[in-house]
Amino acid sequence: MSEVRHLVSIDDLSLPEVRALFDHAAHFAQDLRAHSAICRGRIAASLFYEASTRTRLSFESAMLRLGGGILTAADMRTSSASKGESLADTVRVVSGGYADVIVLRHPSEGAARLAAQYSEVPVVNAGDGSHEHPTQTLCDLYNLWVERGRIEGLDVVLAGDLRYSRTIHSFAYALARFGANVVCVPQPGFELPGYVVQRLREEFGVEPQRADASRLGDLASRSDAVYLTPQKPHQLSLFTDARGFSIEHVDAVYMTRPQTERHPGGEGTLENYLQLGKRTLAVESLRDAVVMHPLPRRDEIAADLDADPRSIYFKQAARGVPIRMAILGWLTGALDLATSQRAPELRAYPVTVGANPCPNATCISRTEARHVTPMLRLASRLPLRAHCAYCSHEIPFGVVGCSTTRVFHDRDSVELRKVRSDHLVFLRDAAEALRLGFTPSVRGVAGTA
Amino acid sequence: MSEVRHLVSIDDLSLPEVRALFDHAAHFAQDLRAHSAICRGRIAASLFYEASTRTRLSFESAMLRLGGGILTAADMRTSSASKGESLADTVRVVSGGYADVIVLRHPSEGAARLAAQYSEVPVVNAGDGSHEHPTQTLCDLYNLWVERGRIEGLDVVLAGDLRYSRTIHSFAYALARFGANVVCVPQPGFELPGYVVQRLREEFGVEPQRADASRLGDLASRSDAVYLTPQKPHQLSLFTDARGFSIEHVDAVYMTRPQTERHPGGEGTLENYLQLGKRTLAVESLRDAVVMHPLPRRDEIAADLDADPRSIYFKQAARGVPIRMAILGWLTGALDLATSQRAPELRAYPVTVGANPCPNATCISRTEARHVTPMLRLASRLPLRAHCAYCSHEIPFGVVGCSTTRVFHDRDSVELRKVRSDHLVFLRDAAEALRLGFTPSVRGVAGTA
Amino acid sequence: MSEVRHLVSIDDLSLPEVRALFDHAAHFAQDLRAHSAICRGRIAASLFYEASTRTRLSFESAMLRLGGGILTAADMRTSSASKGESLADTVRVVSGGYADVIVLRHPSEGAARLAAQYSEVPVVNAGDGSHEHPTQTLCDLYNLWVERGRIEGLDVVLAGDLRYSRTIHSFAYALARFGANVVCVPQPGFELPGYVVQRLREEFGVEPQRADASRLGDLASRSDAVYLTPQKPHQLSLFTDARGFSIEHVDAVYMTRPQTERHPGGEGTLENYLQLGKRTLAVESLRDAVVMHPLPRRDEIAADLDADPRSIYFKQAARGVPIRMAILGWLTGALDLATSQRAPELRAYPVTVGANPCPNATCISRTEARHVTPMLRLASRLPLRAHCAYCSHEIPFGVVGCSTTRVFHDRDSVELRKVRSDHLVFLRDAAEALRLGFTPSVRGVAGTA
Repeated sequence: MSEVRHLVSIDDLSLPEVRALFDHAAHFAQDLRAHSAICRGRIAASLFYEASTRTRLSFESAMLRLGGGILTAADMRTSSASKGESLADTVRVVSGGYADVIVLRHPSEGAARLAAQYSEVPVVNAGDGSHEHPTQTLCDLYNLWVERGRIEGLDVVLAGDLRYSRTIHSFAYALARFGANVVCVPQPGFELPGYVVQRLREEFGVEPQRADASRLGDLASRSDAVYLTPQKPHQLSLFTDARGFSIEHVDAVYMTRPQTERHPGGEGTLENYLQLGKRTLAVESLRDAVVMHPLPRRDEIAADLDADPRSIYFKQAARGVPIRMAILGWLTGALDLATSQRAPELRAYPVTVGANPCPNATCISRTEARHVTPMLRLASRLPLRAHCAYCSHEIPFGVVGCSTTRVFHDRDSVELRKVRSDHLVFLRDAAEALRLGFTPSVRGVAGTA
Repeated sequence: MSEVRHLVSIDDLSLPEVRALFDHAAHFAQDLRAHSAICRGRIAASLFYEASTRTRLSFESAMLRLGGGILTAADMRTSSASKGESLADTVRVVSGGYADVIVLRHPSEGAARLAAQYSEVPVVNAGDGSHEHPTQTLCDLYNLWVERGRIEGLDVVLAGDLRYSRTIHSFAYALARFGANVVCVPQPGFELPGYVVQRLREEFGVEPQRADASRLGDLASRSDAVYLTPQKPHQLSLFTDARGFSIEHVDAVYMTRPQTERHPGGEGTLENYLQLGKRTLAVESLRDAVVMHPLPRRDEIAADLDADPRSIYFKQAARGVPIRMAILGWLTGALDLATSQRAPELRAYPVTVGANPCPNATCISRTEARHVTPMLRLASRLPLRAHCAYCSHEIPFGVVGCSTTRVFHDRDSVELRKVRSDHLVFLRDAAEALRLGFTPSVRGVAGTA
Repeated sequence: MSEVRHLVSIDDLSLPEVRALFDHAAHFAQDLRAHSAICRGRIAASLFYEASTRTRLSFESAMLRLGGGILTAADMRTSSASKGESLADTVRVVSGGYADVIVLRHPSEGAARLAAQYSEVPVVNAGDGSHEHPTQTLCDLYNLWVERGRIEGLDVVLAGDLRYSRTIHSFAYALARFGANVVCVPQPGFELPGYVVQRLREEFGVEPQRADASRLGDLASRSDAVYLTPQKPHQLSLFTDARGFSIEHVDAVYMTRPQTERHPGGEGTLENYLQLGKRTLAVESLRDAVVMHPLPRRDEIAADLDADPRSIYFKQAARGVPIRMAILGWLTGALDLATSQRAPELRAYPVTVGANPCPNATCISRTEARHVTPMLRLASRLPLRAHCAYCSHEIPFGVVGCSTTRVFHDRDSVELRKVRSDHLVFLRDAAEALRLGFTPSVRGVAGTA
């Protein structure tokens, strides 16, 4: 009777659900060993299509601590069983009796969403390419909550490579959603990408403000800090002046390593990368800021900080176990979240006409093109914008057709308001529309005779 | 006190034992999670000398669901521990305290038989090269039994690459043994091999009949169907006419993928391979045929069949868990089979004179030649025929000696009836016999002076 | 309150503790399956930076038999998570909540000692390069104890490649410590190395004696046997004459394979390597000697010995499970050792001045040089000798400085007696001392003006 819940994106959870998960995690954390009856008889399967030992062990530890069993496929990609088989088929088999929850790691964006479509048991996204890794984000939020007692209103510095870090992007969205303020202190040249800022603006009303970071000392000596607050502009203006919002006190510094493997120049060491150390942390504004890092670290955090009580990065990793216990316990039905408020579900529409419009070459809808029906989500109707339902990339289009009338329109035509959402067909240009048998709108479409 | 049982071949089980395993499996299947006390304290070790993630996970899930523990060696072949060590030694160590049952996957035919010889605990064959995979066959039979309530008398279509599929061969033997009828619908050029038909004929009295497959529609449009029934010829003749037995109604279609990795031309795609789809299944004769497939599938089953209630291939895979629960529970002594009827055991004789007569280059008796004593089984005394006791390949020979009298005879000499089975020495030709110090029979042997 | 214990070296255990572990193991061995409540709720993590399937399975079996859970990382080295991360950081994370005990296998000598420094939970060394593998040694001793009822006073033959076998070296030290006598029967050219003999001499008062091995028959026909006894020389002299100590009766023969992978000529087969077989074992002196081997064996033990009741090598491997149950049970706090006598702890001093003096290129202090502070242990003050605290290699030095006075002295200067142990700085030569800002002692130092 009960519908299967998944954790593909942190947006699959409502705020009360997140809070309830934190409560469970905090309870587990008091004594990790005392809960081995909760998932007895239940099995989690780790299906890892790329190696990520730490993430895998964290989930498996959580399941063992709940008394459950674990099936491990640490390298699905090279296993012969997976040769030529679609992810959908694999998930159907494993979810059909082998396991009671699937923990999926996959290099293609959107893989977990696809898996959730076909799975008879809950799917947890343990990282799908550079898309989402919701349990990492939950773990980060949980750490803030444990350390500070709240998330709303906190001032959190994000430092380092803000451009290529999936973790940073997800964390920024989540902080905005929970009402925390973000201070961006990027490595020069590695600022938060425009599309991340745009989403923060659209979804959470965040307006970037130039910030006066003089009190951050060395930490912000090499780059302009930017202040992002999910509060309404008029509120923010009370605190800002011509020099920008002045950062007086920081609650947390979240440091990230250079994501050299994703840098355009390929792998390599980044010279002059930011390094946090005892001296950087000595300024008054950081007096009681906790220092976080998703690990593994390289040199961006000096060893001399390890013994500092503000350094919580090892605790942060350790807390991945109780938060994942809460997640697995909940998804397998062993724990109740004590809230009925659900996150709103975005409807997805299958692309039934034309080619897959997703522009992302590593999206699961393209890496498994033979097995996957492309799906879209409408991000907004006015202006009309759509995302790939798997990888969340924005769909580029020039004209839009209606799948029933077979008429197509300019992308900003008012006519489109009359077309039902599930009838919209996003097309590159008029030429493609004509090729697919669509007729131009009687009001005319640019590029057609 | 109790002798150790193994599951190397499905022939190790009597029919009542198979039935008893099905009963247990059906009981488990009602609620997979309710049996976690059965194997508590027992351990299964997965020793996989080649990757087969799905098979491994199915066994491991079964053991976890019984409350047992699992030791996983997913890639024994590249592990340094196995370097230079004989399979026999590895099995002796692992069975000496590490585990209570060994699940073995190995690329050499006969590996599981060898392992069983040296193991102090039960060995389950999870696939030995292209030889046997008895739990897959049991799972297939169990599916028929669940879906149809019986196996005897069913009409089962085997379709696709019938030549190179180990699964198909084992399934055909098992169907014959259980009294089901087989309709072969091969991909042209990929017919059931002669030695399989010969064994079906010799062991089960099966006589291939040309079949009228006109009612099978598209399914059999490209090849001649052959009907194999384990019933006695005179019975069959009641139903046949000049056009062959007419197939009116099919209980199951078992589809198999092209085994391109074993095709003489090497890997590659087979063009024009059979594809089952909604249209193929639309004919009256297949109205309530279940569709089976050992998975992974490629394109031989169209996605449009997935939602068809007759498609049971995902259920089929899922049922691998309860049937393996029954097997592991029984072998570890936790479940009783409620029958004392055992399968007859074929005696095996060590080859003590001359070279290893097994002609199969990937037989364990040859891939581990330094560690393995070749063994034979007598398939029949009249005419004299023997099989390799490991890989079941037929032993070729020209003359036969007696290991005590040191006299040798023509292969069809009546003298041989007097030689005890365990004294028979199978030799290539008279020259080899003479070289090994045998004397020709006084009645003369062809090829000797 | 209780400090974390580790098992990095067998020297971490006092003799009464070893005895107590044996008692527990013997109890477990009576019924391996009857102890699954002992570690319920506890987790062991296998962190294997090189493959060693047998060792891993032995530990994991032990943990499962105690009712605990296991996290497996069978190939940490190729896992992306470990890329660029220090061993210390990995251990901090895994010990911070993932697991209750860490089983570490690593190719660098001293890795387990380093891990123990950073771990919040017990670390068991499952082999660190060619340094230590204490549970293997404990297992070997336990076997002697089970078979003979004692270790003290036994005569144990070590045969084969005594030069490159880590197992043999550790076993020799342990036998000496327990008061057993060792008879070395090396493959010619593969004698026990000088530094091993030296340590036996220094720590246990062992004096090598030429032995009369005529009664050992074929076993010692190709090499000179050497007798090592931890007893005082005057006691030994009662039993020896000009021909050396005569070996009359042997309690155990410990055979080892040629460690071809460590031979200077690289991998390869060693011709004419010793082989134990029925004939070798037929002499009176070996009448009731048990035959041991750490496995895997190649040809150094003939298959015809396998059925001999004196061959215990498979039992020996099997007993690895109960002894590791005892170790894991003790380390996780589930078992008490019923003795308060602890092994003396050797103090280690960080090297704060100059380069890492450890000469061993595969020591963890050099393979992870960026993350590890070199540490020394003083082996003796007179003459002054020091070892690397990680890999136990002797530190070479020419002069010695004092880190507070910044004065340096000749290595055998009497002045050094006045320098505190933790102020000693071991330096290659006077030139290095001068470069680092040390001043020569007023008494003069060779090599300075």
